[in-house]
Amino acid sequence: MLTVYGMKSSGNCYKVQLLLERLGRPYRWNEVNILAGESRTPEYLAMNANGRVPLLRDEEGRYLAESNAILCYLADGSPLLPEDRWQRAQVLQWLFFEQYSHEPYIAVARFIRTMLPADTPRRAELPRLVERGNQALAVMERHLSRAAYFAGDAYTIADIALFAYTHAAADGGFDLSAYPAVGAWLDRVRAQPGHVAMTPA
Amino acid sequence: MLTVYGMKSSGNCYKVQLLLERLGRPYRWNEVNILAGESRTPEYLAMNANGRVPLLRDEEGRYLAESNAILCYLADGSPLLPEDRWQRAQVLQWLFFEQYSHEPYIAVARFIRTMLPADTPRRAELPRLVERGNQALAVMERHLSRAAYFAGDAYTIADIALFAYTHAAADGGFDLSAYPAVGAWLDRVRAQPGHVAMTPA
Repeated sequence: MLTVYGMKSSGNCYKVQLLLERLGRPYRWNEVNILAGESRTPEYLAMNANGRVPLLRDEEGRYLAESNAILCYLADGSPLLPEDRWQRAQVLQWLFFEQYSHEPYIAVARFIRTMLPADTPRRAELPRLVERGNQALAVMERHLSRAAYFAGDAYTIADIALFAYTHAAADGGFDLSAYPAVGAWLDRVRAQPGHVAMTPA
Repeated sequence: MLTVYGMKSSGNCYKVQLLLERLGRPYRWNEVNILAGESRTPEYLAMNANGRVPLLRDEEGRYLAESNAILCYLADGSPLLPEDRWQRAQVLQWLFFEQYSHEPYIAVARFIRTMLPADTPRRAELPRLVERGNQALAVMERHLSRAAYFAGDAYTIADIALFAYTHAAADGGFDLSAYPAVGAWLDRVRAQPGHVAMTPA
């Protein structure tokens, strides 16, 4: 059986949960508390040298890291990762956008505000994170004002990846009411079969 | 014909150049000077709302952003992106590692040291960038001490993506002599057919 090592309140881990529930695939969830250092133990680093969650252990006992690589691997062969070469390229474009231009701002702002002590010096990073995160939301708003989903006309893993931290952006201090097309898309994602809510931080 | 919009001294753009030269595909290169704001003009933002390079215009006039998505699109169907589902997942794992745990430190340190004025206040970021960049290099060293390439036994786009900024890491203040397996891998990449050097910053 598939095993996921992850922390359910982490958006990157929630992506994998959301996909597995949608696919209806059985899996075991191994909760890893990264705040308690559980992703930096020698045992964990032997499975993933980069010390991050989520991590997938497949049926053959092989390990795969990086949330969006896990999404591609698990969705391969399903409509959530289109076969068409151009559509697949679009999915990947948005998956890389998510990890480079979105997550480092929107997820990190949420992490600082909800998972670190209220007096953490890292709060000094928030203004820049909010500025950059709003740039990412504006790129999404522009796309979603002309399209229902990120890649083609259908729901794919690009939507799963971008939903994970976007729907929780208020935790990071973002005001989603400024992005109505994003808000309507969030509702379309929530209406997908098999949708589950994220475990609160 | 394919058109690449990019700045040749940018590692993210160099990745695309390296792949196209290896594949022997004809292309037109449209140089974009990001330091002069050329990726933020209304004309450029109409092609790529995220305002980044590289950007690919394919034969049908469609635009694709994100360097590693471009690599996947162009390499699809060649041995540089394996068909095998697990090997392909490995390639993607390293492509996401590159954009999340490597480029934001090693490339940004190089950018600050070689492309910004010597008195830029952003030099204050360098100690943290060097620390995190060394963590990424250590993950690579560990992998390359047991394998010749990143995904399976052969050269793939994962090697192209990681070569781009790793081989220029000294520009960012990194000492590659501490990573002998990385050094030997850099030489294997340089020995690949069609290899071209990066345009200096």
